Amino acid sequence: MPDIRPVLFILGFLLLALGLVMLPSAAVDGWHGRPDAQVFLASSALTCFAGGLCIATTRQNRIKLRLREAFLLTNAAWMVLPLFAAIPFVVGANDMNLADSVFEAISGLTTTGSTVISGLAEAPPGLLLWRSMLQWIGGIGIIVMGIAILPFLEVGGMQLFRLESSDRSEKVVPRARSLILSILGVYLLLTVLCISAYALLGMGWFDAVNHAMTTVSTGGFSTYDSSFGHFRSPAIVWTAVLFMLLGATTFPLLIQLLRRDPAPLLSDAQVRAMLGLLAAATAACVLWRLAREPGLDVATAITDAAFNLTSVVTTTGFANTDYQAWGGLPVLLFFLLTFVGGCSGSTSGGFKMFRLIVLVRTGWLSLAKLIQPNAVLFARYQGQPISDQLTAAVLGFAALWVGSWLFIAVALSAAGLDLVSSLTGAATALANVGPGLGAEIGPAGNFATVPDAAKWVLSAGMLLGRLEMMTLLVLLLPSFWRG
Amino acid sequence: MPDIRPVLFILGFLLLALGLVMLPSAAVDGWHGRPDAQVFLASSALTCFAGGLCIATTRQNRIKLRLREAFLLTNAAWMVLPLFAAIPFVVGANDMNLADSVFEAISGLTTTGSTVISGLAEAPPGLLLWRSMLQWIGGIGIIVMGIAILPFLEVGGMQLFRLESSDRSEKVVPRARSLILSILGVYLLLTVLCISAYALLGMGWFDAVNHAMTTVSTGGFSTYDSSFGHFRSPAIVWTAVLFMLLGATTFPLLIQLLRRDPAPLLSDAQVRAMLGLLAAATAACVLWRLAREPGLDVATAITDAAFNLTSVVTTTGFANTDYQAWGGLPVLLFFLLTFVGGCSGSTSGGFKMFRLIVLVRTGWLSLAKLIQPNAVLFARYQGQPISDQLTAAVLGFAALWVGSWLFIAVALSAAGLDLVSSLTGAATALANVGPGLGAEIGPAGNFATVPDAAKWVLSAGMLLGRLEMMTLLVLLLPSFWRG
Repeated sequence: MPDIRPVLFILGFLLLALGLVMLPSAAVDGWHGRPDAQVFLASSALTCFAGGLCIATTRQNRIKLRLREAFLLTNAAWMVLPLFAAIPFVVGANDMNLADSVFEAISGLTTTGSTVISGLAEAPPGLLLWRSMLQWIGGIGIIVMGIAILPFLEVGGMQLFRLESSDRSEKVVPRARSLILSILGVYLLLTVLCISAYALLGMGWFDAVNHAMTTVSTGGFSTYDSSFGHFRSPAIVWTAVLFMLLGATTFPLLIQLLRRDPAPLLSDAQVRAMLGLLAAATAACVLWRLAREPGLDVATAITDAAFNLTSVVTTTGFANTDYQAWGGLPVLLFFLLTFVGGCSGSTSGGFKMFRLIVLVRTGWLSLAKLIQPNAVLFARYQGQPISDQLTAAVLGFAALWVGSWLFIAVALSAAGLDLVSSLTGAATALANVGPGLGAEIGPAGNFATVPDAAKWVLSAGMLLGRLEMMTLLVLLLPSFWRG
Repeated sequence: MPDIRPVLFILGFLLLALGLVMLPSAAVDGWHGRPDAQVFLASSALTCFAGGLCIATTRQNRIKLRLREAFLLTNAAWMVLPLFAAIPFVVGANDMNLADSVFEAISGLTTTGSTVISGLAEAPPGLLLWRSMLQWIGGIGIIVMGIAILPFLEVGGMQLFRLESSDRSEKVVPRARSLILSILGVYLLLTVLCISAYALLGMGWFDAVNHAMTTVSTGGFSTYDSSFGHFRSPAIVWTAVLFMLLGATTFPLLIQLLRRDPAPLLSDAQVRAMLGLLAAATAACVLWRLAREPGLDVATAITDAAFNLTSVVTTTGFANTDYQAWGGLPVLLFFLLTFVGGCSGSTSGGFKMFRLIVLVRTGWLSLAKLIQPNAVLFARYQGQPISDQLTAAVLGFAALWVGSWLFIAVALSAAGLDLVSSLTGAATALANVGPGLGAEIGPAGNFATVPDAAKWVLSAGMLLGRLEMMTLLVLLLPSFWRG
């Protein structure tokens, strides 16, 4: 039996923090004289009270987290926090039911960015800020989980980064707490830089703050139904591309960059693969459109392709146009790239670049082994041989990913979604991207019209993907709960 | 460098055999006074001449096939034979271009069953017989390849059956030649039984012969555009279900059954998984339709679901109705089951049941390992522990499968197909099923309207799938061609 007390104790502090970040929304709504200010104050009080209760009843001097408690805490944090985060949606002026509210809160905290709210421009500013806040704190939670927790749980080959980061951290940042503080510093710095850039380029301050928080966290919530389609300036769009890419980059590499050591960033296999993939996909989309749309402006075509593809690959989910109108190959690329995801140790979701690299290289190697059955051959990642154990972990993760995707797609189709909506809805939820494909949940639509049953399935899918499947699925094993 | 002479020598005999099976088509067209009889005679002469040339120039006393020659022969057989098999289509009365002809020949020999010919009822009977013949000889080629060649090449975990079948064959059939003769006997017996059953239940003799050849080989070519929609009798439909299932069953198990030892068949993990999956999918489709279509006849619903699902899972590709009209969940199930395939050592294509079982069991095990990192745990297949090597082989195969699928889908979309046609066209080609989804290539359509470029891509996909990917892809390795 895992010991539930240290789990509740830490969860209490997380709830306290969540309650506190409701206050800026209360302040903004109060400033604008909106009645929703009271909603956020009450929600904050309730959340802080619950947090305090957890802390008070399980108070202890030394927190001891073993493997099972670490699993339980990670799951509890991602399942309980969204329930409290949903309170302002349920109680607020926007008249959202429970399925909508929990969907929106989970989409926020997991930095997915799918929304069930239409008419964002008329929504109370506190509510808009709350959505952005959820993604922003979700983003930092994801980085910390990806760097400090998942590698030790050995989830889907993440042990690769336990060795690496502990190797490096001995030289660069001596202790885990110091590493987390450095990450928080980088995250704050990126956010401030992004706000400033957006504001300087002509975005209003409120929009700049909101979009910066959802850009750096690769979340994708916007304050407009048309998302980045609202902003005509190419400079703003390219700023978003830059900060989405930074948000999808392994954060320890950014720490080293800020310490004037750009070499690890520039030589990183994941960063190179991400940029290479994006460059190739952008070129393919632009060439495809140029061959089919006479009179197309090349600069606009490049900007649109780069922006929307980067948004999908970094799992942000902004869109500035309905790229489904590009047809054929581009639509298929958007579908495929929904699965990919950015770098490990970043805010992005999806399958992750390092797993893709391991998969491609070992797949290629298995061919070479067929004709040289007795030769000792191995694939490499960042110059190191890829161990059989790592290969098995990544391949097992891939199998679970595909299995989860199909399971969710079947559930969505049983809830009444059509083929394309089921397949892309399951993918966009599991990879924490945001938009799917098709008329309903595509980049020009949202998830408001989806049946409630499908919203619950999608909410579960977003959590499953964010917890890299395995972290959540171990709870299903009877042996987890036994001695 | 592989030695090309024994490869050409054996290929010569295969070409001779192909030339000879063109003669029944010549006879049938001659009997009906159709001018196409000459086409088949000339094609036969050309093919036999090419075969004789191969044999004469590379004649040798002892055939020695090492690993590389076995790979080369397998590839050569599946690539060269379709070119000769396409001659009657190119030259024949149906006015088919090269892309169409090669597509139809590959779809025949690989027992895929996708067709580019519309108006089958008006086509010369010799041509119809030729299509069925291609699937019938393709089917036996696939079983022999799956039992005698792939296990020794260790393709995608097929080594599992090297151990097993060599174990068994020592007791049951002493030598490989004897095993192949037994298989041929079972295949002939099944075909004769199927012809008789179809004819007794009211199908005309010509239709019975053609459909029996494409049922037992899980091929799926029909002599009517509406496929099994032409036959109203439920008894005929259920006969097809039975023989499709037998064709998709591991043939050595059927040999044992005929020797009055049904135990291995009844306890076989693949057979049980295939029947269980079909029962579950049929129940899901029937319940889905009953909940939505008032007044639906239950017996017809069960027959239609069982027939069309069995057709897809066994990779046959017959259809008796446009099941896309069933909507939502059924359509998604048809999409997913396109990938699955029947048992190894049968005529069916796809991922195969044993790989699915290994994948599901090791995936589940990797979860258990997460929380008990020090425990020695292993999954089992037919009571035997699944080795790490087997797991790696199956997972590597799965990765190649997914990679090939996406690659083909991208190529199809670049050739102008829409999202659903690209994704399902790639799947149905690679799994050698037959129909895709969507208005164009779905069960109610065919591949006639697809652009030529897409036909070539699909032809390559059918070959790639039939050669279980790896057998073909090793040819791309420079080391294959070096010393």
